[in-house]
This record gives sequence, C-alpha cells and structure tokens, in this order.
Amino acid sequence: MTRFSSHAGAGVFCLTLGLSFILSFVSPLARADEGMWTFDNPPTALVQQRHGVALTPALLARMQQAAVSFGASASFVSKHGLMLTNHHVAMDCIDQLSSAKRDLTAQGYLARSPAQELRCPGGSARVLLDTSDVTATVLGAVARGSSDEQRNSLRKAAVAELETRCAEAATGVRCEVVSLYSGSLFHLYRFNEWEDVRLVFAPEYQAGFYGGDPDNFVYPRFALDFALLRVYDRQGKPLATPHHLRLARTAVAEGELVFVAGHPGRTDRLQTAAQLKTTRDTQLPLQLATAQAQQAMLLAFAKRSPEAARQALDNLLGTENWLKSMRGELAALNDPALMAQKEADELRFRAAYAQQGLKGNPWADVEAVTATQTTRAKELWAVGYGYQTLLAHAGSMVELAYERERPEAERLAAYRDAALPALQRRLKADRPFYKELEMARLAEAWREAAQLLGDQHTFVKTTLAGGTPEAAAQRVLRSSRLDQAAVRAALIDGGVKAIEASDDPLLRLARAIYPLRRELARLREEQIETPLQQATERLGQARFTLFGRAQPPDATGTLRLAYGKVAGYASHGSTSPWKTTFGGLLARADSFDHKPPFDLPPSIQKARARLDPRVPLNFVTTADITGGNSGSPVLNREGEWVGLMFDTNLEALGGRFVYTDSTARSIAVHAQAVVHVLERVYGAEPLARELRAR
Amino acid sequence: MTRFSSHAGAGVFCLTLGLSFILSFVSPLARADEGMWTFDNPPTALVQQRHGVALTPALLARMQQAAVSFGASASFVSKHGLMLTNHHVAMDCIDQLSSAKRDLTAQGYLARSPAQELRCPGGSARVLLDTSDVTATVLGAVARGSSDEQRNSLRKAAVAELETRCAEAATGVRCEVVSLYSGSLFHLYRFNEWEDVRLVFAPEYQAGFYGGDPDNFVYPRFALDFALLRVYDRQGKPLATPHHLRLARTAVAEGELVFVAGHPGRTDRLQTAAQLKTTRDTQLPLQLATAQAQQAMLLAFAKRSPEAARQALDNLLGTENWLKSMRGELAALNDPALMAQKEADELRFRAAYAQQGLKGNPWADVEAVTATQTTRAKELWAVGYGYQTLLAHAGSMVELAYERERPEAERLAAYRDAALPALQRRLKADRPFYKELEMARLAEAWREAAQLLGDQHTFVKTTLAGGTPEAAAQRVLRSSRLDQAAVRAALIDGGVKAIEASDDPLLRLARAIYPLRRELARLREEQIETPLQQATERLGQARFTLFGRAQPPDATGTLRLAYGKVAGYASHGSTSPWKTTFGGLLARADSFDHKPPFDLPPSIQKARARLDPRVPLNFVTTADITGGNSGSPVLNREGEWVGLMFDTNLEALGGRFVYTDSTARSIAVHAQAVVHVLERVYGAEPLARELRAR
Repeated sequence: MTRFSSHAGAGVFCLTLGLSFILSFVSPLARADEGMWTFDNPPTALVQQRHGVALTPALLARMQQAAVSFGASASFVSKHGLMLTNHHVAMDCIDQLSSAKRDLTAQGYLARSPAQELRCPGGSARVLLDTSDVTATVLGAVARGSSDEQRNSLRKAAVAELETRCAEAATGVRCEVVSLYSGSLFHLYRFNEWEDVRLVFAPEYQAGFYGGDPDNFVYPRFALDFALLRVYDRQGKPLATPHHLRLARTAVAEGELVFVAGHPGRTDRLQTAAQLKTTRDTQLPLQLATAQAQQAMLLAFAKRSPEAARQALDNLLGTENWLKSMRGELAALNDPALMAQKEADELRFRAAYAQQGLKGNPWADVEAVTATQTTRAKELWAVGYGYQTLLAHAGSMVELAYERERPEAERLAAYRDAALPALQRRLKADRPFYKELEMARLAEAWREAAQLLGDQHTFVKTTLAGGTPEAAAQRVLRSSRLDQAAVRAALIDGGVKAIEASDDPLLRLARAIYPLRRELARLREEQIETPLQQATERLGQARFTLFGRAQPPDATGTLRLAYGKVAGYASHGSTSPWKTTFGGLLARADSFDHKPPFDLPPSIQKARARLDPRVPLNFVTTADITGGNSGSPVLNREGEWVGLMFDTNLEALGGRFVYTDSTARSIAVHAQAVVHVLERVYGAEPLARELRAR
Repeated sequence: MTRFSSHAGAGVFCLTLGLSFILSFVSPLARADEGMWTFDNPPTALVQQRHGVALTPALLARMQQAAVSFGASASFVSKHGLMLTNHHVAMDCIDQLSSAKRDLTAQGYLARSPAQELRCPGGSARVLLDTSDVTATVLGAVARGSSDEQRNSLRKAAVAELETRCAEAATGVRCEVVSLYSGSLFHLYRFNEWEDVRLVFAPEYQAGFYGGDPDNFVYPRFALDFALLRVYDRQGKPLATPHHLRLARTAVAEGELVFVAGHPGRTDRLQTAAQLKTTRDTQLPLQLATAQAQQAMLLAFAKRSPEAARQALDNLLGTENWLKSMRGELAALNDPALMAQKEADELRFRAAYAQQGLKGNPWADVEAVTATQTTRAKELWAVGYGYQTLLAHAGSMVELAYERERPEAERLAAYRDAALPALQRRLKADRPFYKELEMARLAEAWREAAQLLGDQHTFVKTTLAGGTPEAAAQRVLRSSRLDQAAVRAALIDGGVKAIEASDDPLLRLARAIYPLRRELARLREEQIETPLQQATERLGQARFTLFGRAQPPDATGTLRLAYGKVAGYASHGSTSPWKTTFGGLLARADSFDHKPPFDLPPSIQKARARLDPRVPLNFVTTADITGGNSGSPVLNREGEWVGLMFDTNLEALGGRFVYTDSTARSIAVHAQAVVHVLERVYGAEPLARELRAR
C-alpha cells in the first residue's frame, strides 16, 4: 500500500558535473543527517552510505504502522492500544481532566484498572494508512486557471473534492491532501482515526517537566517527559494494535544509529533571505513582545492563589516554551554567519535558476509579499479572538456558522468540509475554562492591541468599547455561558440562526470582530499566502527540477522519518555527555538544595533509595526534529523503541532555518527510564510488564 | 604591625558633586563585588554597606597570618604547619617527586607518618609579616632624575637599597618593594619564608583534575583540586602555626558572604584601549599560535608511550590551561560591548584628566609604546631560551653569572640582589628533566621561531646552526649534563669563570643566545616597560588624585583580599547551581560511560558505596579572583575556612580586563569534600582529625 520504492539520490546522480558543482552549494544534501523524510521517499541510500544500515521496507512499515498523530506525536507500544507520548503532549488531556480537587497535573495519575482509564475530552489519535500521488489531478485543475487568484481557487476546489471523495469511499477513514516541495507534489494521505483516547499513566508535572522553564531546551536534562494513554476502538474496547513497537532488548549506546518517526510541524529551510529578514526584524519581535507580556501577566495571575497558579500553569508553560523557542530562533537569525550562508546559497541558487532558463523573478515576488507583511504586521498580529481563549471558541463558532453557508472554495481555509468534524469535536468538548484567567488573558491581549494599533482602530474600539481592558474583559466574560459545553454544542448545531439569536456577550463580541478578522484573513490569504505560494512554488519547482526528491521536503505536520547518531557534544566550552542518569537527576536536585523548579516530586523523594543512579534518564541524538516531533518514538535499527523524543537543545532552535549537527541535538527520554520509574517509583508493575511483553 | 586603618571611600566622598558624576562612569567602584584589595586598605565600608558584615581588624589579621604564598596561594589549616593548597598548585612538587616507578601524579600520595612526608624540591612558602609605606623614599629618589631613563635607574636603585637594607635588618625575613596604583604608591613588604615544604597528601591527578581539559574553566565542576603539605621550621620540625585557619563548623550556604585571601597574579583593568587592542590583535594571537603548536606537539609526544605521556603531562596541562584562558581573554576582548565600554570609560577619564588641569598626553605615550610592541612583536616573543626548559635553566645560569658582575642598577630586572637567593635555589633544585621531551619542546619552539623570524635571523641561525629543528635540539641536549643538579650547582657557584670554561653544548648555546636576549630585554625595559611605566604612572596618579584608595589596585602577585557571594548563575540558557555534589561527580562519570577524562580514579570507584552523594564537592562565588589565587582559602564571616579556590569559569576570563558578577564566577572546592574524601576514600582519618582540631 504505502509505496516504499526509493527515489533517493536519483535526481542528483544523473545530472551533469557542471551542475553538481552548483549543487554542492545549493543543495542541503551535504548537511550530514539532515532531513525529515516522507515514508514514501525514505533516505535509504543515505542511511546505507552514512551509517551502513539497511532501511528495509519491513522496518519502514513497522514504524509507520505504530506511529500515531496525537496533538503532536505518539506510538503504540503494546498490542492492546497502549500509546506512549510525552507528558507535555498529554498535558492538554491531563489538564482538562483536572480540577481544584483532583489535580492530576500536580499529582500525576495511574489507572490501576481499565475502568480507571480516563477519557481525554476532545482527544483523537490517528495513524497513516497510505499515501497516493495526486499531483497530476491538482496541477491539472490549477492549469485551467488564467489568474493567480483563479488558480488558487481551482486548487482549493480540487483539493477539497479529492478529500471529500476519499472520505466518502471508506468509513472511519480521514483524508487530507498534503502539499510537498512547496507545491511541487500533492499527496493524498489516508488515516485511521479514533476518538476514544484515555489517560492511563502520567507522572507528576514536576517529574515530567523537571527543571521547569530554566531547563527547557537545555541539556544535560533530567525530565521524565512521558505519559501512557490507551486508544479504544469504536466498540469501547482497547484497540487491537498488533503492529505496535517492541521495547528494545538492548539499551541504546553512544554512537548508535537511531530513527525517529513523528510529525514535525513546520520548518522554513527553503525560505528566501527576504523572508528570513522579515521573520527576524518584524514577526519575531512582535511575537516576542506578546509572549513576554503574556508571561508577565500569567506569573502575576499565578500569585493570586494556589488555585490560580494551577489554572494558569498550562498557559504559562506554553507561553514560556514559545518564548524560549522564539529567542533561540531569533538568536539563530541574528547570527551573521547563518544569514551570510543563506544569502550566499541564494545567490548560487539564482545563478542555477537563470542557467536553467527558468522565467520570472520569484525572489522579487517574495519581496513584494514581505513588504505587505511588514506594512500590515501589527494588524495581522493583533486583530483576533485571543489565542486559545474562550473568545477564540466563540470566534470559531461564529466563523463556522457563517463560513459553512458559503460555497466551499470561498470559505476561509480552516472551514473546508474535511476540517469540520474535528473542529466541531474540539469546540464541543467538555473542558474547563477559568473565567478569571480568561479575563486576565483577554485584558492583556487588548491592552497590547491598543498599544500597537492606537485607540481609534476599529478593533480596539470594538473590544474595549471605551473602557479599560480589564473592564471590557469582565463585561463580556462575567455573564457568558459559553464555558458550558452543552451551551456551545446547542449554538453550533443551531447554525447561523442560533448564533445570531444569542445574546451571550462573548458571542456578540465575536460577531462584531468577525468582519474585521475575515477581512484580514482574506488579505492574508490573497495578498500574502497566495502570492507567496505562487512564488514559493516557482522556487520549489526550480529546486525540484534541480534536485528531485533527493532533498527532503520542509516539515508539514505529516508523518516523517528522521535519523541520526546518539552523540554528546561540546558547546560554549562545556562538554555534554550523550546521556544523563537518575544519579544526575538526584544530584541536580541536591545541588539546588531542592528549590523549585529543581525539587523532586514526593514520589521520587520517597523512592530515592530504590532508584539505581546508573540507569539512563535522557539522551541526545543528531536526528533532525522540530516542534510536533514531541512524543516521537526513537527506534534502533531493528525498529524497537529505545527512547521518546521530547525536546531539542537551544542550539537546535535555528533548525527551523538550517540543520547542523555540530552542537544541535534532539533530546529523548531513555526507554529504560520509563520502565525503571514505573517499577521503582510509581508501583505500576503491570504497565511495565505490558511494555516488556513482546 | 600591619596597618588596618581603612581609607576606603575617603578619597571619593570628599569630592565635589560635579566630579562624582564623572566618577560614577570612570570609577570601577560601581561594579558590585569587584576588587582584590590590599590588607592595609581593606574594603571595610563596602563590605559593611553591601553585605552588612563587619570586616574587623581581628578578622583581617587572622586571614593575613594564615595566608601563604606557595607558587600560587595556600593557607595554614592546623597548628602544626599543615598547609592546604590546590592539587594543581602542588603539581610541580608532586611531579618532581615522581618517577616512572613511583608515579605520585597518577597514584596520589598519602604520608602515613611524619617520616613519609616528602620534601618538595625547590619549594618555599612565605607569609606576609607587615607592610610599610615607602612612597616618599622612592618618589623622592626618582625626583632627582632629569630624564625618564635616569628616573627609572634612580627608582630601581632606591628599591634595591630599601630591599637590601630591610633584609639585612632581620634574619629569615624576605623584603620586597611593591608598586601599587601604577607606581602611585610604593610599599615595602616583609615576609617570613621557609624552604622546607613537604608533601603530605595528594589525590590522584584524575581526582584533582577531574574532567581534564574539557572541564577546565567549566562549571558545574567536580574536581577534588586540593593537596596537603607541611611547612617545617629551620630546625626540621613541623612549623608551629598557632594562627592557622579553623575548619568551619557550619557548611557554607547559598547567598552567604565569603572572603578570599590569596595572591592574584595580574590584572590589566586600568589598561588603555590602545593596550587592549595590542593584546587582542598582536600579543594574544602570537601566544595562541605558540600554545596551539606546543599542545599539538605534546599530544603527539604523549602518544609515544605511557612513560612519555607521564613525562609530558605537566607541560600539557600548563599549555592547555594557558590556551583555554587565552581563548577566554580573546573572546572577552573580541566582545564589541567590552571594548565600547572601555573606550567610553577612557573618553570620560580623558575629560576628567583635562578638567583637573593635568599635563601631558599619557594616552599618546602609550600608543607610541604599543606601536613598538607591534613592530617588534615577533622577535620579542620568539627570541629566548624556551619557557621552563632545561635551556631556560642554562640561560638563567649564564645571565646570573654575567648580570651579577654589573652594578645592581644596570642589571636586568630579574637579577637584582634581593631576587638572587630564590633564583639560585630554583636553579640548583634537584628535579627531573626528560631529554626526549626537552628535545621535542625546543624543536617546536625553534621551528616556530624560524617561521616567525625567517632563516636569516641571527637567533634562528644560532639555534638551528643550519640543521633541522630536531637535529639542532638533539645536538645540544644529547650530551648536556645540565640535567644533573650537582653540575648546575657547581657551575652557578663557579661564576663567570666556570660558565665560560664549560663546554656543555646547552650552556654554549645559552651563551650564544645571551647577547640577543639581553638586547631585546633592554629594548623591552627601555622602550616598552619604562615609557609604559611613566605613562601608566601619570594615568595612575591622575586616577589616584580622582579616586584615592577607594578603588582597588590591579593585582600584582601580592596578598589580596576579595569578597563575594556564594551564588549560582544562568549563562547561555543553562542554569548552574551554587554547588555540585559527589552524586554529581558519580553521575558525570556514569553519563560518559567512564570514558577518559571523565573516568573515576580506582580509589573513588572502590569507595563509591561509602560516599554520601549529597555532600557538596565544588561551589561558586562572585569573589574577584584571577590566576595566582589558586589555592586561596575561602572564608566565612568568622574567618573559618569553608572552601578552597581553584579556578574561574570561562565567563570570568575577561576579568583580566573587566570584573562582572552577572555570569563570571570563581570556583572552589567545598571544605566538606576535603574531609569527606580523606575519611571515606583515602583512609586518611588522622589528617581529617588534624583539620577538624580547633
């Protein structure tokens, strides 16, 4: 089904010598273990050549069948649907299952029987069934258009039709058209999807995120960032997963080749210098300012009471994580060497482009777009419903109601038919909202919007209505009933009529914001995304002509395969080992006199004497991963799982733009650590047995 | 005797408000815990103001009486002359007591009885008795001169006379005139000195220098960098040291104020921008190239055999240490912010200088000197006898013979009467030389000289004599008998006659190099050091006029007091704790799978179960230290010892030029670690008891 025939290298090796000189500079091929490869075009030749290991079809099939998309990444690790992912990936579920009385985030959770396995609100897991090439269909439809706008509409329509037709052909199967190589290829992905996912085990937040924000993106690291969930089938039975991953019999060792199967979200390695500069000079600074303001607000909010701190935690973690990763990206973009290399690469690519006799000047087209992005940056950034707020739920409900009334090709991209079931599920899911927290977050967002846009901007007038941000946020939230899942469900099912009839103040505000948002969303689609896509397509197609599929495509959130070596590194004068140990965890806690965030959870404190200080805890590899890979299994050459990816080091944050293996590393939880704490700390021997079973 | 009256602050607080504005920029006073203060001008007011701690005369006396100068720094820690210093400070002694058969460096050493305490060849220890101000005498003599050269000679003569007269006044007392504040003040220092120093305990090199070069200047750190020696009196009995330091009853804690009493060698915080640029652009690059070449040569040499590795170790350590510290300094000087700050400080200082109506342009004078330094840099660097080689011994013997025949004021500075006893002792001391190693080192130095100076330079012709560097080095070393202490002693005692009569090839070569060296040494003294001293004096006196003794003087190798807080820090995204533990040491070894240089010595391996992982091993402070402070005791506010300085982190290497306390830290061995390993690892309970006795 999934096509394992390898095209790797074919595109390059038949080219002339003269071009290969250019290639050696332009192509990212030269960069060691770079690449988040699609499973239908695996780096078989590279892995054989660099590591002497055969990436067999059987091995690939095993990885693909066990790799799960669950928010970020996950994998099946027993034949009874047991699913391994990161604690921070399961955090949404853990958080939603928590309350002031039963704080699963702080205390962790262990289901001692199937009945105790707790269903995650709104959770869903999917596995890639197969992919097929629909490039001819999509590009054939596009070719009938005479303007960029028309071509864009035609492509959307073709994609939507392919997805709908595919979904209708088989029940329980989800379909998605994925664009690769900047729109050079279109593949139809078919997934099996399950909506019943239950929490089985989670360590305490303090174990999963040991070291907190100071240790985030840092190595040496000592985090038990794993959780276990179970996928249930449509009959409410644990899903039969015969193709699960086996726990490795032999622990992973320094220098060993490993594979990573997961869902990297996004890389921007093919962006032009103009795009990188816009990111560096306009977008990241705006986003950093927001993140900093939100962080300060959340820290202040958390000080109100322990319960406030609990409520704010998930947002705070997300914000601090975002902040640190943006800082890493900005540091990379501010590195003159990186920018010089990108500019030199671009000059050579331009020469190759001209040499191939390709027409147009996509670089100039990109620059026109980045000029718009820069001019409208503040509005594009500040006008909205507030990231992951209850108002954002209201906004999505309003948009869903109005957009679905339009012909599919005219809708905003997020409201294509194929996307609607998941969206509705998410909006209707019963999860807690904390109104005080929502007020604080909206007030901060609106204060920032007023600062960026000025008092007279329609958005500012609409949201503040002449009051302070705090007063305005209180006004819309206090009496809103949208925090109740049943209220939301009724409104969603009632369509435009119900939405327009509601006098819920939050929904009223969302209705008022909608026209502004839609205008900007259209502007984004028409004046930014579409022309960028056109230009990027031209560049992508030029690259594709030059290199074919010998280069990996940028990440797109779909299933990818990365590989690399288990290896320590030296950075900033320090030498970091390939692994850390439980002894290292205890030593770090002792070194800080057990002060937060370096304190140990009571369970580990109590189990201290039972822990073997030599057992590995975390380890690092050169495998090329990015956000979305969290929860990816790390596999040995036999396809057994040896670890669980959960982070990169700071040095790898520039990997959004350029891969390096000198000091950039991906960080994994060692498989032995998972089993060790289940047995020695958490009294979860049955789970450890389930993991060990083959 | 030692004057404890504090002048701190007096110079500043009586100045006008207008000037204090300038001061706040020019003066280093604002920089937190900066300062390596002399004991006659302690930072009493600053310590009181910043830390609320009284630096009493009794406390100062206790520290001064127990602080020992021993190569670098040390202190008395029992009433029976027991002296604590770093393993790496005692390394010279340990190395010289070692042989192929008894490798004390590799195996460590414990004297189980007084008879087993081994005398260090050429070792001597001294304690500062008192200091007195001789500024009037020296400057009075200088004032009689009419030219710079004359003034310089007059000063030298005045200093020499003061030192000689002082030494004659009391037996066993050493005297030295110390210049402070760039020659603004001259103090006569009187020391008690003992020549009988014996090795009592040293851990294995692998414990003392755990982590090797990769961990050098790095923190978190896990080094047992301590050794114990004993000073014997002139009757061959353990020296009575009633004023020794007591081991602290309470372990040092985070945030605590600590003092450091030691002998910082040199800082260059008052250098002009022109000097810093010469260091950055000319001197450090030359020195780095030499260090790199020597390192490569020593690593190659060490590969010849285990015995060759043993022989090369001390040199290799010194070279790698030097290399890493120069890299840190160069990184600091290459930091545009540092240079911009220095230049801005200088502009303001120039304005203040003009405002005070001071004459001349010392900055221009400095620039004339740095021009000479740059023009003659290669010769000044490459022409010599080879650092710490047997040829350097020969060179010193030749120079000693000829220079002592001259009137004292005309001699090269190293051969003033007061310096001769120590020099002779050093040259006559019985220590091993390894001819193969000597050959490799000389060959490498001469290869580099030929590269820098060209084949036709007299020095190159003299050393190579038309052959290859290797052949030339073999020729002079193979039949030389200077490696025998008795041969050297006879030649030294025989004076010029014996030196000229000797046909030892190494001595012959040293005689041939001497005229070249003397010419360059004179050039250095007359065209560099003297005018630099004049200019620096003018600058120093201007600063002294502005700030008085409220600012600390640059380090000069004499006893100083520093203070600071015990505090972790965050650097390059990582958060480092204030202390490390034995658990951390074991974890680091485990994390690297016990691969060198992260392996544990067998003694610690064997004692693993007896070690308490929570016991602190190393810790960091903001105290202002530099090279020469190695072995300094770290004291609490009661004057009890809580630790032992042995290093700084990489971030502190810029401290040669600017002190900061944001990420720069000094690193100490924790007192509890010393006692813990004596008791639990090395079976040295009697020593632990001696340390605990009060």
